Amino acid sequence: TAVRSRDSKLIDLAVIGGDGIGPEVTAEALKVLRVALPEDVKLETTDYALGAEHYLATGEALSEETIEALRRHDAILFGAVGAAPGDTRIPSGLIERGMLLKLRFAFDHYVNLRPSKLWPGTTGPLRGDAPIDFVVVREGTEGPYTGNGGSLRTGTEQEIATEVSINTAFGIERVVRDAFERAQARPRRKLTLVHKNNVLVHAGHLWTRIFHAVATEYPEVTTDYLHVDAATIFLTTQPERFDVIVTDNLFGDILTDLAAAVTGGIGLAASGNVNPTGAFPSMFEPVHGSAPDIAGTGKADPTAAILSAALLLAHLSHPEAAARIESAVEADLAERAELGVRGTAAIGDAIRSRVAE
Amino acid sequence: TAVRSRDSKLIDLAVIGGDGIGPEVTAEALKVLRVALPEDVKLETTDYALGAEHYLATGEALSEETIEALRRHDAILFGAVGAAPGDTRIPSGLIERGMLLKLRFAFDHYVNLRPSKLWPGTTGPLRGDAPIDFVVVREGTEGPYTGNGGSLRTGTEQEIATEVSINTAFGIERVVRDAFERAQARPRRKLTLVHKNNVLVHAGHLWTRIFHAVATEYPEVTTDYLHVDAATIFLTTQPERFDVIVTDNLFGDILTDLAAAVTGGIGLAASGNVNPTGAFPSMFEPVHGSAPDIAGTGKADPTAAILSAALLLAHLSHPEAAARIESAVEADLAERAELGVRGTAAIGDAIRSRVAE
Ligand SMILES: CC(C)[C@H](C(=O)O)[C@@H](O)C(=O)O
Ligand SMILES: CC(C)[C@H](C(=O)O)[C@@H](O)C(=O)O
Repeated sequence: TAVRSRDSKLIDLAVIGGDGIGPEVTAEALKVLRVALPEDVKLETTDYALGAEHYLATGEALSEETIEALRRHDAILFGAVGAAPGDTRIPSGLIERGMLLKLRFAFDHYVNLRPSKLWPGTTGPLRGDAPIDFVVVREGTEGPYTGNGGSLRTGTEQEIATEVSINTAFGIERVVRDAFERAQARPRRKLTLVHKNNVLVHAGHLWTRIFHAVATEYPEVTTDYLHVDAATIFLTTQPERFDVIVTDNLFGDILTDLAAAVTGGIGLAASGNVNPTGAFPSMFEPVHGSAPDIAGTGKADPTAAILSAALLLAHLSHPEAAARIESAVEADLAERAELGVRGTAAIGDAIRSRVAE
Repeated sequence: TAVRSRDSKLIDLAVIGGDGIGPEVTAEALKVLRVALPEDVKLETTDYALGAEHYLATGEALSEETIEALRRHDAILFGAVGAAPGDTRIPSGLIERGMLLKLRFAFDHYVNLRPSKLWPGTTGPLRGDAPIDFVVVREGTEGPYTGNGGSLRTGTEQEIATEVSINTAFGIERVVRDAFERAQARPRRKLTLVHKNNVLVHAGHLWTRIFHAVATEYPEVTTDYLHVDAATIFLTTQPERFDVIVTDNLFGDILTDLAAAVTGGIGLAASGNVNPTGAFPSMFEPVHGSAPDIAGTGKADPTAAILSAALLLAHLSHPEAAARIESAVEADLAERAELGVRGTAAIGDAIRSRVAE
């Protein structure tokens, strides 16, 4: 499912640093990305100002012109967006919906990819030392995220509010197929469907039906099903049982934050909002937020952004460059406990040096 | 919000043992419940056969007559239901929806109560030793659980399936109020609303609006808001930050299983499906399932069922009896590591003896 950029010797990247620590961590990711690429591949970057600051300055979360401009790039490297907590000038959820989700829908990012790994040398919150290494393939364009629903008698004691989860055979099949492809390419070849098909019967049956149908095309992949509530238990008590998980947009939102927590926190979690067809640019970003409390202090950990750059390279058919970054991160993390506190640039430099070796 | 049974000297209990280990653990809970009650309070029990076995024998998951009969009791003590995995004679979800959820809706169990505590002497999966002691108040009669939704072009490549989450001001206010009452009665007096109001805006705004409105009536309760994805992170990394959580039916389903996991597993988790008005009998049950693999072996741990009996007594205005059971369980758990493996009856007997002391 890797995508070749239009010119295989050029990567034309859009960079959205965003707010807070966003630009600080994408800067480090770019440093590393540059040295990871083969010498004959050129990297061009274009910065886009988006996020809470941009909204306050312009009144726009994401204009149609910006979407058109972003569309022409091979991929997007994204930092983080979000105002300081308590900033009342921006209505809650406006940037999330007006920018983040708008991009996912505009660029048909139907695969929301979240690798979840407990790296050697790091410590998660779980007592056990079981190896954790799985990928969540979260559907990104359907489910309860479509903005359907509404309210009646709004603001009164008789208010009724609905949220409608929309699930299509088309939308489920393409993400399930992508998840089977990824499971097939991994050593353990195991795919777990997570849903709540004992309660959400209509959507649940559709997911289950398509999952079983596609499974017949991947006889080497072992399949499994868990209700979302049970999946949270296993993520905390037997995370080693997971290899690839495929799930709905909302369940995926919940499970991937939990997965990030059990693998040591969102400081290390990378993600991709992927359109596997290549029809639109995919976007790669750390799972963490803009952390306004530490912005400007040089304390932000750029590792998740750097790992996001590796996902980006793998997506753009540079698997060796991606692997070089991952190995460098792995080596850096393995020594981190001994190295003591390092700042944003020091971590970025250290990983870059390893990649350049 | 405690409810007095119609005759304060008589508790007229319906007992639904159910399948697998269900009847084994309710038997122990009843043993303990009997000795916990003041001498002048009489306990009458009526057994009801329900569950997968009952469905296979009768073709009915829960008849209207059974609902009518159950309605006349003061409360229901429930074990667990569910066929052996792989038993294809029962369609997936049939017992859950046809019996469990049907009872919640028939008896308007709008407060789904899940105390979550890491008991002294027990070990959870989390590395930290922070004390964990919170209660989840999960809405029980609305949200995505109402069975709304459907499918179009079912079974074809063009299928569309929807699930509709229904949220009413009436339904939210009553459960939010109940949660504030519970928070007010606890030493820390803290209530956290969990939702996803940055994405599910209609339901999210309604929950948030009502939460803030009711909060003005409880100035001593500290309030807090978390998105559901962030809540899963805090449940694994800072569970001690929670006191009372109030949330939607589906988020509550997910969070309470996770809460059970971080507090040492569903083997100890008790729950109540509560109608705080007393208009209908409330139902108390362990969170674990029927565990057909160990049914009949005497290995089932009855502790969760015993703690459910304590919740039942507190609900029926016998707080001292409830506290006696909880203390006995606490004492038993504190010594469990030294006591070695004990069977179902041995644990029940030990806790009963402590209560009788
Ligand atoms: C910010 C929010 C809209 C987003 C989501 O819910 O998808 C975030 O939580 C994520 O997981 O990327
Ligand atoms: C069995 C199922 C319908 C139920 C639910 O989803 O509420 C269970 O998971 C629970 O939490 O009691």
